[in-house]
Amino acid sequence: MAEPLVTCDLIIEAGWVVPVQPHGVVLENHAVVVSGDVIIDLLPASESAKKYSARKTVSRPEAVLLPGLVNAHTHNPMTLMRGVADDLPLMPWLQEHIWPIEGAIMGPEYVSDGVELAIAEMIRGGTTATNDNYFFPDAQAATYNKYGFRALVGLPIIDFPSAWAKSHAEYFDKACEVHDNYRRDALVRTAFAPHAPYTVCNENFDRIRVLSDQLDIPVHCHVHETAHEVEESIKLHGMRPIARLDQLGLWNDRMIAVHMTQLTDAEIALCADRGVSVVHCPQSNMKLASGFAPVEKLRRAGVNLAVGTDGCASNNDLDMFDEMRSAALLAKAVASDATALNAASALHIATLGGAKAIGMADLIGSIEIGKQADLICVDMGSIETQPMYNVISQLVYSCGRQQVSDVWIAGVAKLEQGQLLSMDSIALKQKAKHWHQRISSIQKV
Amino acid sequence: MAEPLVTCDLIIEAGWVVPVQPHGVVLENHAVVVSGDVIIDLLPASESAKKYSARKTVSRPEAVLLPGLVNAHTHNPMTLMRGVADDLPLMPWLQEHIWPIEGAIMGPEYVSDGVELAIAEMIRGGTTATNDNYFFPDAQAATYNKYGFRALVGLPIIDFPSAWAKSHAEYFDKACEVHDNYRRDALVRTAFAPHAPYTVCNENFDRIRVLSDQLDIPVHCHVHETAHEVEESIKLHGMRPIARLDQLGLWNDRMIAVHMTQLTDAEIALCADRGVSVVHCPQSNMKLASGFAPVEKLRRAGVNLAVGTDGCASNNDLDMFDEMRSAALLAKAVASDATALNAASALHIATLGGAKAIGMADLIGSIEIGKQADLICVDMGSIETQPMYNVISQLVYSCGRQQVSDVWIAGVAKLEQGQLLSMDSIALKQKAKHWHQRISSIQKV
Repeated sequence: MAEPLVTCDLIIEAGWVVPVQPHGVVLENHAVVVSGDVIIDLLPASESAKKYSARKTVSRPEAVLLPGLVNAHTHNPMTLMRGVADDLPLMPWLQEHIWPIEGAIMGPEYVSDGVELAIAEMIRGGTTATNDNYFFPDAQAATYNKYGFRALVGLPIIDFPSAWAKSHAEYFDKACEVHDNYRRDALVRTAFAPHAPYTVCNENFDRIRVLSDQLDIPVHCHVHETAHEVEESIKLHGMRPIARLDQLGLWNDRMIAVHMTQLTDAEIALCADRGVSVVHCPQSNMKLASGFAPVEKLRRAGVNLAVGTDGCASNNDLDMFDEMRSAALLAKAVASDATALNAASALHIATLGGAKAIGMADLIGSIEIGKQADLICVDMGSIETQPMYNVISQLVYSCGRQQVSDVWIAGVAKLEQGQLLSMDSIALKQKAKHWHQRISSIQKV
Repeated sequence: MAEPLVTCDLIIEAGWVVPVQPHGVVLENHAVVVSGDVIIDLLPASESAKKYSARKTVSRPEAVLLPGLVNAHTHNPMTLMRGVADDLPLMPWLQEHIWPIEGAIMGPEYVSDGVELAIAEMIRGGTTATNDNYFFPDAQAATYNKYGFRALVGLPIIDFPSAWAKSHAEYFDKACEVHDNYRRDALVRTAFAPHAPYTVCNENFDRIRVLSDQLDIPVHCHVHETAHEVEESIKLHGMRPIARLDQLGLWNDRMIAVHMTQLTDAEIALCADRGVSVVHCPQSNMKLASGFAPVEKLRRAGVNLAVGTDGCASNNDLDMFDEMRSAALLAKAVASDATALNAASALHIATLGGAKAIGMADLIGSIEIGKQADLICVDMGSIETQPMYNVISQLVYSCGRQQVSDVWIAGVAKLEQGQLLSMDSIALKQKAKHWHQRISSIQKV
């Protein structure tokens, strides 16, 4: 007598499944079975119909099914400033363009509209989780919640007043309030986001250390982005920023250290020893001429690595396929070693590495039974990915984000055969146009 | 009385026209007028209908119209080996993978099928001219001619026997024969393609110098790709490869020097002085860990620069948008200067710079009256390019090749609203599958 069929919500059959964990594995003609928001099975497609009865079955014989990409460092509201000022050194870019614009438009409306546009771009490009870092985290969190997008929202701490908070105390009060409002949210979590060692004083870092311990949340910070930052810290504090953060008790496994282009071998060893995660932003580092992160050295030292696009005002997109490829290519050039950060490792840091960095390795980043169903299908049938000898190599070195056909977050479909679900593309473009006009008029003043 | 309308074949109206020449200019709501294969006017769209009567008018209000991209260094038959062996050092990659495969499959069928697949990928990605470098140039030239694709086909010269030619004499005899067969072709031209300084002897370089002068054709060569190449030349010839090529009389304005990652300031000055064109292949140089070309130094010295993807067995695509972006980003990092190779300059080297390198600056590379109608439309309406503050910045830093909607070569439509014309995508994929099976079976032996 046949076993009775197990009821489930969704079966996704694909020509290839790349689960990321185990590392480098490609499974041909496999299916992922989803119940509610959870992955409950991964098995040959030929067996799934014998074992499960699904409310919906999606069949993608020409596609690769893999975990959604994790964009581990963004400033998503700035999507509305995409390419507003390019090819400039950091200071004129900030002082003559970004800050005057932000001064004029900063507020919850700008932040939520920017995040909305970013969510659409991320979903279309196969990103299912983001680590955001900007002002008005309440507006960010509300927007991620509204669209069912997984996010770690940074609670900004900076020594200067802004439209978000006028005093050090207000930054912390508001941070704790936002944290409190989302502490039981299914998709949105919070982290402290001290801007950088050069804009946050020891007292504020102390307070972040105490609160992040108490609340058990990560700390997301730009660290060693440029040589200038390191030099200034030596002048002012008598030590490099990492040494200072270590002295302040922040150099530990809660730390999400972004950029990290200036590192000694001792600092790399310290990252490994303390369990710090490093977010590599290769395109941002190149575009702003910040320096070259020693990615392969970090990897060999056992440091957890992740990938981030940075914000659209500097990069200028949220394309994690392009960023993953840039990471794989640049790592080889910097290490003078063509075997550095191979395709499987590049895919790992863009998925499970990112998940670990943002404290969600138990939930996302790989296709494993019991994990959340954050999944994407990438169509390999297009001319640009013919012929295909190695699936993972093709994903990293040949694929474009436009080949992403289907996206699920926590089991909910967000993109189906290239069509955005539950988002109105025309309304999004109208909002982008509105902000374009408003920001352009500020720029011209 | 109104002037009588001038008859023409095609009017393309676009939201923006970027002619490349003059540098950095963006014209809003303009039209390009084409008669036969030639651009006969560029004027405001509002005036084109008053002046011209066209057989066909194409209106793309959300698109940018610009000259087609020029891929200045490829090995297009190798498209059939896309990603066949990645993340390997040069010698194991060549000796254990590429050479054994080539040994088993090299011939006109493989070459023409590979070029066909490459043409489809190039057209879909907005590339309208290529500088190819491989064996069986007769099969390459015939395929470019068949599909009406503009190409400079390299006539290979290498000291070792191959399936194409058994002796030094046969290489030259066949080269001259192919040149002769295409000397009056509208779209296909030929160049000498000595493989590299380390695989071609002085006698063969001497002969190339004489023949390229007589036939008035360019010389396309890999030069200073790696530090190892330079060291070996010093051991064997007592001088660096550029010095040797200069002594042999080949370091002149016919020379298309590819890669050039190892350059002294004196060599940069010599390139400028002699009118050598340099083809930068940023992704190939990173992926093979060859080194960093000093692009901004070359640009400031006045050296003509072009961009190439290299072949799909090493890169692994023919995506000139991604390559142009990589060039712009990497140049800043290498120069430690965020203003290096700005967006307009990156677009220049991917169009007019490439055209000049391959000896076609009088024909293509910019939208100018009298030039060939090699044109592309890029749709800026997608979410990924919203909002748009600066058209050229958006083309370089945010655009993907999938946004290319329409392509013309010599006035003939090749892509219309994303659909390939006169090429059968299904047949192409079947051919790719056939070669995939054949090459996979060789690899496993």
